[in-house]
Amino acid sequence: MVLHADMVVKNAKIITMDAEGGIAGALAVKHGRIVAVGDESEVQDLVGPETETLDVGDRVVLPGLIDSHAHFMDAGSSRKMYVDLSQEAGIHSITDIQEKLRVKAEGTPKGEWVFGYQEDDSKLKEKRHPTRWELDEVSMKHPILVTTVGGHFWMANSKALEMAGVTKDTPDPVGGKFDRDPKSGEPNGHLHEEAYDVLRPDGPPEPTREQSFEGAKEILEECAAAGLTCVYDLVYRSEMRAAIDLKNSGDLPIRVRMDVTIDLIDELDKLGVYRGLGDDWLRICGVKFFFDGAISARTAAVSEPYLDKPDFYGVFATTEEIARDTLTNAYKKGYRISAHANGDRAIDLYLNILEDLQREFPRDDPRNRDIHCTVINPGIVER
Amino acid sequence: MVLHADMVVKNAKIITMDAEGGIAGALAVKHGRIVAVGDESEVQDLVGPETETLDVGDRVVLPGLIDSHAHFMDAGSSRKMYVDLSQEAGIHSITDIQEKLRVKAEGTPKGEWVFGYQEDDSKLKEKRHPTRWELDEVSMKHPILVTTVGGHFWMANSKALEMAGVTKDTPDPVGGKFDRDPKSGEPNGHLHEEAYDVLRPDGPPEPTREQSFEGAKEILEECAAAGLTCVYDLVYRSEMRAAIDLKNSGDLPIRVRMDVTIDLIDELDKLGVYRGLGDDWLRICGVKFFFDGAISARTAAVSEPYLDKPDFYGVFATTEEIARDTLTNAYKKGYRISAHANGDRAIDLYLNILEDLQREFPRDDPRNRDIHCTVINPGIVER
Repeated sequence: MVLHADMVVKNAKIITMDAEGGIAGALAVKHGRIVAVGDESEVQDLVGPETETLDVGDRVVLPGLIDSHAHFMDAGSSRKMYVDLSQEAGIHSITDIQEKLRVKAEGTPKGEWVFGYQEDDSKLKEKRHPTRWELDEVSMKHPILVTTVGGHFWMANSKALEMAGVTKDTPDPVGGKFDRDPKSGEPNGHLHEEAYDVLRPDGPPEPTREQSFEGAKEILEECAAAGLTCVYDLVYRSEMRAAIDLKNSGDLPIRVRMDVTIDLIDELDKLGVYRGLGDDWLRICGVKFFFDGAISARTAAVSEPYLDKPDFYGVFATTEEIARDTLTNAYKKGYRISAHANGDRAIDLYLNILEDLQREFPRDDPRNRDIHCTVINPGIVER
Repeated sequence: MVLHADMVVKNAKIITMDAEGGIAGALAVKHGRIVAVGDESEVQDLVGPETETLDVGDRVVLPGLIDSHAHFMDAGSSRKMYVDLSQEAGIHSITDIQEKLRVKAEGTPKGEWVFGYQEDDSKLKEKRHPTRWELDEVSMKHPILVTTVGGHFWMANSKALEMAGVTKDTPDPVGGKFDRDPKSGEPNGHLHEEAYDVLRPDGPPEPTREQSFEGAKEILEECAAAGLTCVYDLVYRSEMRAAIDLKNSGDLPIRVRMDVTIDLIDELDKLGVYRGLGDDWLRICGVKFFFDGAISARTAAVSEPYLDKPDFYGVFATTEEIARDTLTNAYKKGYRISAHANGDRAIDLYLNILEDLQREFPRDDPRNRDIHCTVINPGIVER
């Protein structure tokens, strides 16, 4: 009796990543594990009648790449829910926006929302956002809402304003603003900050189970094609559900490690669900907390002002008190922390809290993570 | 290059369970899977320098046994929380009960509860339950509560009654009764039904994380020693947490399939956690619903009266309306149902609901389970 490999890869340049930086020509796999790496002659004995042989034509074979942070599944379902209005999607003018939204509206039952996203006025030939009245040319029967690539600003059509009861007599909400036509005083459909909440008091739409599933499947397949074998993704309900559905249907293309939003820690704890539930393909890891903004938006909390905003040091998405309370509650229950801390002020605060927590509730394997950790200073490196 | 087995078992009577009922003498394992079964000579080639060889001395080797329903983890933590007052634990008299409770009280901080369980007056030489005053001889500083093997009846000491403010002037609660001394009218510490809730308004104690862990570890190790390789267990928070902690620490002795109490379905659904999250060792399966009582207590809902209770047909733990609403909510979200339905009236109702659900929300693989399914009738067999 002889054991054969399930698969043999040959005629390859295998970057083994061993200490000597060795390159091998072939490898053999049994039960999903690499059981031999070496010359073709060395794996030839493992080829049996059932063995699949893959001649990769002198191509490079790498160990699988792991993306330690992305929001792939959310991006995947967004594709299924929103009309892509980016330049990359072929949008160069307000007419292009109207045409693409019209196709979506025609396939959407009357009265239901049509959402566009990734609109970028700097890439449009008009160099401005479409107005409410230009969106009305798409449809008066569907509420339409368009998100910009930079966030914080939206465009709505008349139906969307009407459903929210917004007229020229509606005052601006606290922390938000309806832009208005200078002559008539009518809202022109341009919404700033909290004005969004007037139109969508329950926030952005939740994808359907099918949208989450199809979106996650498509984008994770693209990840696999790009060489990724594992990704750490933030999950809310929709993403967790999509990932489990993909696993159950046998369609999960790559490994997924899930950081659950810390907003759901009470639900996790009531169930008794902790890090480690899952398998090598799909597993719960940490709970995700946000400390500050993003570098791209110049909102990461930094200790020196931004070059283009002399007195601006970014913003915290939390207070020290809330951060301490929230992370203490999670840490003492044994959860692993994955925190978004981008600027050095945020990172310092995060490290202060982690050091205190590890002192108060010590654990052997405190592999908490700082996600992004973009702007560091010598003191942080020291720690 | 040759692949070797990780383990070889030889000198065995291996019940292969193949169609011919074959018996083999040896087997080989690689990566946790059986890769060869046959004569010793057939597996000998797979033995390498790293292979562990197990000579089982002509013993029988069976495929792993699976227990499709038990409450092992709950029983395990009970052992850690409660003093065992059963005959099997060496209790034959009220003095034995007092001595065993006293040992526990001496190791318990004053003011904290001491719980006994599995008391059975029919096995005591006095043929009666201890009174409040006999439990007071154990401790006046600790509230003491003793559960009987049959349930529905408890004994408390004076401290426990005092903490709940129960005096001779306290009326019996609705659905419950405090037994009283015939002369003085003082409660004698014997509690029926809802009288328990007066002393423990928040219900039974929840085990600590350590108690759940140690209890589950001990009892699942006993399962492994008895030949079980997998058990389906009902989980609330404590059991889920214990199972995950055991898996993470590498101490999970056998495979566990978890049916989550349907009381936690909102938490599951808010997280997006469904059947299938987990791995071959620990996995979420169904959600657990209770239709009726138990045969042992003569409370299963049956269509013919019990022999010893001419007009009694058992009791439902639910109404048809609640059962339909609860199971519909679970089924349409894709959860698999594990229901306790013992008597034929309960089973019929369960099957009626399942048939309707499968018609309304069809799925390809409707492997819902009836747990117990004890008393069936020809109509049920037909279905």
